[in-house]
Order: sequence, then structure tokens, then C-alpha cells
Amino acid sequence: MMLESVVYLDNSATTKPCEKATACMMRALKEEWGNPSSLHGLGMQAENTVSQARERIADLIGASPREIVFTSGGTESNNTALLSVLSAGKRGGRVITTSIEHPSVLETAKRLREAGLEVVTLSPEPNGTVPLSALEKALTPNTVLVSMMLVNNETGAIQPVAQAAALVKRKVPTARFHCDAVQAFGKMPLRMGSFGVDLLSASAHKIHGPKGVGLLYIRKGVHIPPLLTGGGQENGLRSGTEAVPLIAGFGGAVEALPDPGEQNKKMTALCRYAREQLSKIKPVVLHSPESALSYLLNLSVVGYRSEILLHFLEKQGVYVSSGSACSKGKGSHVLREMGLPREQVDSALRISFCRDNTREDVDRLCEALRMAIKTVRRTNG
Amino acid sequence: MMLESVVYLDNSATTKPCEKATACMMRALKEEWGNPSSLHGLGMQAENTVSQARERIADLIGASPREIVFTSGGTESNNTALLSVLSAGKRGGRVITTSIEHPSVLETAKRLREAGLEVVTLSPEPNGTVPLSALEKALTPNTVLVSMMLVNNETGAIQPVAQAAALVKRKVPTARFHCDAVQAFGKMPLRMGSFGVDLLSASAHKIHGPKGVGLLYIRKGVHIPPLLTGGGQENGLRSGTEAVPLIAGFGGAVEALPDPGEQNKKMTALCRYAREQLSKIKPVVLHSPESALSYLLNLSVVGYRSEILLHFLEKQGVYVSSGSACSKGKGSHVLREMGLPREQVDSALRISFCRDNTREDVDRLCEALRMAIKTVRRTNG
Repeated sequence: MMLESVVYLDNSATTKPCEKATACMMRALKEEWGNPSSLHGLGMQAENTVSQARERIADLIGASPREIVFTSGGTESNNTALLSVLSAGKRGGRVITTSIEHPSVLETAKRLREAGLEVVTLSPEPNGTVPLSALEKALTPNTVLVSMMLVNNETGAIQPVAQAAALVKRKVPTARFHCDAVQAFGKMPLRMGSFGVDLLSASAHKIHGPKGVGLLYIRKGVHIPPLLTGGGQENGLRSGTEAVPLIAGFGGAVEALPDPGEQNKKMTALCRYAREQLSKIKPVVLHSPESALSYLLNLSVVGYRSEILLHFLEKQGVYVSSGSACSKGKGSHVLREMGLPREQVDSALRISFCRDNTREDVDRLCEALRMAIKTVRRTNG
Repeated sequence: MMLESVVYLDNSATTKPCEKATACMMRALKEEWGNPSSLHGLGMQAENTVSQARERIADLIGASPREIVFTSGGTESNNTALLSVLSAGKRGGRVITTSIEHPSVLETAKRLREAGLEVVTLSPEPNGTVPLSALEKALTPNTVLVSMMLVNNETGAIQPVAQAAALVKRKVPTARFHCDAVQAFGKMPLRMGSFGVDLLSASAHKIHGPKGVGLLYIRKGVHIPPLLTGGGQENGLRSGTEAVPLIAGFGGAVEALPDPGEQNKKMTALCRYAREQLSKIKPVVLHSPESALSYLLNLSVVGYRSEILLHFLEKQGVYVSSGSACSKGKGSHVLREMGLPREQVDSALRISFCRDNTREDVDRLCEALRMAIKTVRRTNG
């Protein structure tokens, strides 16, 4: 298979590192390879590289550089945020999250439950959005943490995080608010000043940066214990030699982000085009709400199992996914939670765009889907 | 400062990524950039990249690929190993470690103590080696974990890990044995079959691989809980999208390791030469025992404070460190534990070699030290 001929529509799983990110990594590997903790010139040069990336990334979301802690990725950021309530000695406290979070939140929430915390998971409405009223009902004075993702990784449904954070601050000011923004970061405007969350997770490889690096935003004044202890790097919040080339690549990826206004216009148009074209294919049902982030489109080709379609599409050079990359073939918990019938869950496909995708890519997808419907044996329905 | 003119003798802090490692990373960034969890061709290609690196690395230490779990580095590996005893529900159990471990072990051991475990730290003899007899005395039937580093990161002193692991297996077969081998991995022969440890930590950036990736060897049959939970990558032992470019770079660094026999001969000769030349400089006292790993040489220029010497040497283009990179200027706990007098601790320098260093580098160091002794004001002694 020639890569040139591939239409890659699995950008929510991972994106291709951009040239800027790769170039920054190369420079860090070949020139700025010192240990930032070393006191000599090479160490300081590496520390500078890290600082510059931190400033650039903080700037993107209106945070102070000191509020950005680099981690090994979204999973570590989510684990750090959730597990932070463990050592607060608040056993018996309540943790509220949603049933459509990424496994790195849901699985970690299970550990909190095992450790004696009460974990409440809020369900979404049929459109994939968790209603504020459900959060309001669940909030109790002993709530210690609320964790709500911003953009769902399977449907693109945008959760009412800013309003939820405001609600929590008003009702239970002692509770912390964490937001998994892995699918939102770099794709929609985020200003930490007004957003109101205490903790926020993001990852580089979803925005054309390298795999293996992410961040945890920790609002000034919020104190959480480190998950990793040791040399005291990252102001003692995340020990371990800084992954300088990755951090440099993360900074490069953020630097290479296109103008948000232009980009939003482009992606909205692309997504609208995809919705129109896909809707013309008869057994296609769209699961993503109209209001979803325009980078994501979840759908079913009713009667055709996801895995079979996925492999058929792959043979046509069109790469999509069935659900999230992290659920590897298991039926989507997100779609089930939205109340979709089994046959829609079993035939779900996730189309996810990046800035490099075009209308031609959508046409190739539709063409391949039409061919599949003609060729592939219906398995049920 | 032109980098060409620099003599880099701080290789225990970090090493320059080798060409092979960098090339593997580039390929992973430009071609094998899929998410290994994705079911399509790009995902499988990325998974292959990870598998190949895993096989190569496992082979180096005589382990099975399934016994290798990739982490974000030595600190995460050490944290995972130590914290594994927490969820075993063995509160009140004893954890034995040494007082000369890396901060990522010592600081994490403190957390175990706070969580109700009894932590015993064994002290080294004046030569920097922890005696087996001390371990034997400390072992109790309720010991759940012993953690002993293989090569000390400040002095290069080799600890009797194989004998210690055998002792533990004989006396308290239920206890786990963890070894922080970050400074030993790739520098001395390690065969997991005969070495006898249950868990072992290593890091790529100490052997000319990239920062941000390491491994935790988990012996087959040993079950520990994951530190990071989520998508279930690495057989459920370490969730988070695999850092494919870093893992590829780690594999490349291992592939580029020179023949161990040749390398050992070369480094032994270089270290012997350094010992001879440095001993000729009058106020120099060597702290590393003769039996230490030949990559490391700890010394004092008695009467001259470390930081002052370090900066003087830097001006001459010679980069060394004062203690470990992770202790950033604080007096060395390792040297204090060895019972060295305060003035030796305060004037300690760590010289650390890699395969690229030469006798000329040693000559440049000695020359710069002689100049320092003539120029720099003695601060005490």
C-alpha cells in the first residue's frame, strides 16, 4: 500500500507529526541534548528549550508557564489528576465523573472507588452531552473532585465544562474540577482564566506533535501531590528527567497550529460537507450531534459490522476507526451510554479529521462506503 | 562556546543520542506514526516498530519480550516498582532499600513509609558498597520488597545485587526484589535468567537513546498492579499510547551498543588512565572504589567547592557534574552516607564517561583542574 494513496481519517487516534514538531525534536536530539538539571551550559541550553516550549504552550491556553506540568501524555495527566484526591486523606469523599470519559479516567476512577471513595458517573443524553442538571443533582458537600471531558473522543460531543466548573465552584467551592481536554486542546479556543477548571489534561500527539508527551495544567493555588516522585523536576510536581525532545516537539506542534478562526471555518465546512455526503448513503446514521466538534464524526452503516467495514475501507486506502483507538475492538461504551440500539453500536465508525484533510478525502470515504455496501455481506438488521 | 571544543564528561546525567537512535526516531515520526492500538495498517506498522524494539531490548538482557514494559523513564519504572507493594494490601510489611539509591527510589520509599509500611535503609561501607550482611540482618519474614541499585549513580560502586537477590529468595521467598539498573543497563552484562531479580528499571537516555523512555522488566509470574490505568496498553501494565518514536529510539540505541567485551576493555583502560592522571594532581582524592563501574569516577579536589570548580571547568570547555544531575547542587547524600568528611563532600566532582570519550578528554580535564587549582581561591581546608 502506497502511503500517498491513503486517506487517513483516524486523527483522533493520533496525527502525523508536523514538520515543525519534527524539526524541533531533531534540534533537541542533535544539539540541545543536555540534562536540564545539569548545571553546565548544555544543561542550561536544554532547560531553555523546555522553558520556551512551556511558554508557547501556556500562551495558547492563556495560562502561566508555571501552571503547566509536562507529563508522558494524556493518560498520565488524567491519572495524576484523579489520583490526587487519594492522598488528601479524604476517604469517603465523592468523586463525580461521566460515563463517557476516556478509559484513563474511567479505569482510574475505579481505583478511587476501590480506595474507598464514592464514585458517581453521570450519563449523557441521547445527543452525547451530559446535562448540567445531572451534575447539579449529584453534587454533595463532600464532593472532592469532578472530572468531565471537554470533547468526547468518539462522538466529538462538547460537554458543558465551563458551566459545570462554575456550578461546582458555586455549590461546592472546596471540590476540584478536572477536565480531560485531550481531544479539544489546539482545536477549540481555551482560555484558562475564564474556563474555570482547576486541572486540565492535554496531549501532543493529537495535534501533530509526538507521542509520549502531554501536560497537566494546574491552576495557580491548587496543590496536588505528584504521581511520580524523585529528582523534583517540574517544581516537584513530576519527577523524572524532562523529555526534552518531546517537549520541544510539543512546543513546535503548538507553534505550527494554524490561525484558530481560519481553521475553525475550514473544519466546520469540511464536517458539514461530510455530513451532507454521508447522509446521502442510505444505511448511514450519524451519531455525532450537529453541535459536536467538527473534527469528529461518528456514524453507523446499519447492518454492517464495524470491523468488517473498517478492513474493507482499509483495502480501499481509507483509514478510519471503530470507536476509540484505546478500546481496540470492544463495543463502544460511549454509544451504549447514549442509548443507541445494539446494531448501531456494532456498526459504528469514527471518522476523525485533521487540518490536512480535504473534500476529496470525504469523497474517497463515501465512494469506499458505497462500494462496501454493494460488496460486503450484511451481518444483521 | 563551540560545541566541538567541549569535553563532555557528564554522561551519567545524560548522553548524546547516537545516530542510530535518532534515525529510528525520525523514521517513526515520519513513517511509522500510527497509533499501535489502531486496527488499520498504520496502527499495525507502529505496533511492529514497538515489537521490534522490545525484542531487541529484551534480547540484550536475556529477557522475554513479554517481560519488558515500556515506561516514560527510570523514574516512572522505579515509582511503579516501589508503589506496587501498596495495593497488595500488605500494610505493615517491611521494605528494605539502601541509603544511596537514586531520589526516585528514596522519595518513593518515603511515600511507602507514610502509607504505613516500615522502610529500612541500609548504609554502605566506606567504599560505597552495601554489605550483604546488612541486608541479611534487616530481612524479616514480613519483608515485602527489597530495592537495591546495581551501579550507584554518583560513585559507580557496584552493589552485590545478584547475591542479594539470591539471599532474599532463600530467606523470604515471598518478598519481591527490585533493582534500579539505570546506570548499569547497556554498560555491563545483564542476564535476567541468572541475575535473579523480579523487577528491574532502565532508561534509554543514559545509553545514547532519547529522554522520556525507559523500561520496567517484570519477571514472568510476578504480578504487580499498573501505576497508570486506562486503555490497557503494555498488557494492561502501563496504559497510555505507546511513545513509538521514543521506543524506536531506545531500540536503536541498544542496537548501536558496541561489542560488550571490546567496550569493557576500552572503558576499563580509559578509567585506569583517568585514575592515574588524576592521582598525580595533589589535592585530588578519588571516592570511587577500584571495583566501580569504569564509566564513573567520583573525586574531590579538597579545598575547592564543587560549584566553583564546575563553573571554572565549564569555562575551559570541560563539562562535569557535582554529584547527580537530579540533586542539582545539594550536597551528595551518597558521599555523606559513605562517611566522607564534609570538606570532601563539598568539593566532590563526578566525572562520567561514554564510549566516545578519549584519553585526550582526560588530559583536557586534568589540565583544566591544574589551572583551576592555580587560579581559583581555596574556600576552606
